[in-house]
Amino acid sequence: MSNNTSWHYENFEPTGSAIGYRITRKLDEVQSPFQKIEIFESTDWGNLMLIDGAMMLTTKDNFFYHEMMSHPALFTHAAPKNVVIIGGGDCGTLREVLKHPGVETAVQCDIDEQVTRMAEKWFPELCDANHDSRATLMFDDGIAYMKNAAPNSLDVVIVDSTDPVGPAEGLFNKAFFESCFRALKDDGILVQQSESPLMLLELIKEMRAEMGKAGFTTFQTLPFPQPCYPTGWWSCTLARKGKGFDFREADSRAKGFQTRYYTADIHQGAAKLPPFVAAELGE
Amino acid sequence: MSNNTSWHYENFEPTGSAIGYRITRKLDEVQSPFQKIEIFESTDWGNLMLIDGAMMLTTKDNFFYHEMMSHPALFTHAAPKNVVIIGGGDCGTLREVLKHPGVETAVQCDIDEQVTRMAEKWFPELCDANHDSRATLMFDDGIAYMKNAAPNSLDVVIVDSTDPVGPAEGLFNKAFFESCFRALKDDGILVQQSESPLMLLELIKEMRAEMGKAGFTTFQTLPFPQPCYPTGWWSCTLARKGKGFDFREADSRAKGFQTRYYTADIHQGAAKLPPFVAAELGE
Repeated sequence: MSNNTSWHYENFEPTGSAIGYRITRKLDEVQSPFQKIEIFESTDWGNLMLIDGAMMLTTKDNFFYHEMMSHPALFTHAAPKNVVIIGGGDCGTLREVLKHPGVETAVQCDIDEQVTRMAEKWFPELCDANHDSRATLMFDDGIAYMKNAAPNSLDVVIVDSTDPVGPAEGLFNKAFFESCFRALKDDGILVQQSESPLMLLELIKEMRAEMGKAGFTTFQTLPFPQPCYPTGWWSCTLARKGKGFDFREADSRAKGFQTRYYTADIHQGAAKLPPFVAAELGE
Repeated sequence: MSNNTSWHYENFEPTGSAIGYRITRKLDEVQSPFQKIEIFESTDWGNLMLIDGAMMLTTKDNFFYHEMMSHPALFTHAAPKNVVIIGGGDCGTLREVLKHPGVETAVQCDIDEQVTRMAEKWFPELCDANHDSRATLMFDDGIAYMKNAAPNSLDVVIVDSTDPVGPAEGLFNKAFFESCFRALKDDGILVQQSESPLMLLELIKEMRAEMGKAGFTTFQTLPFPQPCYPTGWWSCTLARKGKGFDFREADSRAKGFQTRYYTADIHQGAAKLPPFVAAELGE
């Protein structure tokens, strides 16, 4: 191992735990109007993106998150055509969404253009679909975007946000979820990243409660591994207006695109919560 | 948060990543003839046990590991009666094994008595079953124990070891697995903790290859979350002499004991490997 390596740690206060990487150098840094974005090169994880010191993604392990933020929702909706991604500036979720041939429009609305510029530069593989004719990349306030979205116009809204502090704080409350509820069609699905099911179960409960106040009635929290996030175990939560979650299993099994983590079996497995999580969520 | 907290990190060289905890104080420390054992108190994870600086367990998250090291194997064997645990000095796996009423004898053979003494003191809940009349706690060399075990005498051997360096190095090679093979009955099952399926897949492949050279013919690698181990995503690998893995699903669903992570659904879900793992393992 080169003598020029050092260790970079992120202390995550809410869980009392930290994750670190052996890095070789800082590749880039930009202070946007919203946050500080840093790119590091690591010995084993490819490139790392940190926002205000918080680990956002690594080349090595981002596929868990991006696949699980998109495919479970898209294979649950009967025929998703119009998708909006709030946040998601690294474009990895957009890429996964556009693997679905039935999707007609996918809007990515991230407040910070610099996140996408850095992704294009340091994670180009995530930006493969940015020039897909179905894709629209916007750099604007996601809260305002959803507030102004046409009622009953969307099939799936994916909230691919940072932690509920700073710019993303407004993406975890009733007012925002009400906007999503209004913009979704009757069979629409909202997906939100929902933090660690081991250490932040209270946050998941509160988030589901806020979604409930906004009108959503059925919820599904799916855990998955995400090594670069605190505890290494993360989750997404799906919310629906009225009906249950009807997994299009046959379509999922016959999907004509590659994934590294997501499969129909993984999807079904994730939906079976461990007892300690199910008990807390009242399932 | 108290000003008296500090962060303790473990840099894990093989994965180029680190995990850390916010700790309040060191509770205990002992240098045994084999290794240095330290106990820390943390703000959010209960007590931590480190051996030679490597995180072994936390109060908060050890249940993932202990449940997955025991129940999948015991619910796959048709009628496990005689179980041996090599390593496992913290007694958590022993406790899970003895939840199965059909188990008649469970021998725990850890080379280091001080691990168990520290567990009794700082993780007493893991030692609940130590005085079960079916339990035998030995402090001896597990390699020698398996070498001298009576042929065809065991139903399940659980290798609950530290990483394959230092005292545990000899628990990952053909010679040791041959001893296990000989000691197991024809329908016996060997289980070994098999590190991170994201970053240490080569190790899993090599371990399965060594098991194969020792005579085992069928393998099953089950991933599970384990926040305190590198990458937060860990695995166990089951090996069998000749036949496939017949999950006793009905018995698992009707199990008369509590678990926090393990269920029949979790078991079945874990057996469905993500594509990138399956491809590497040739499944």
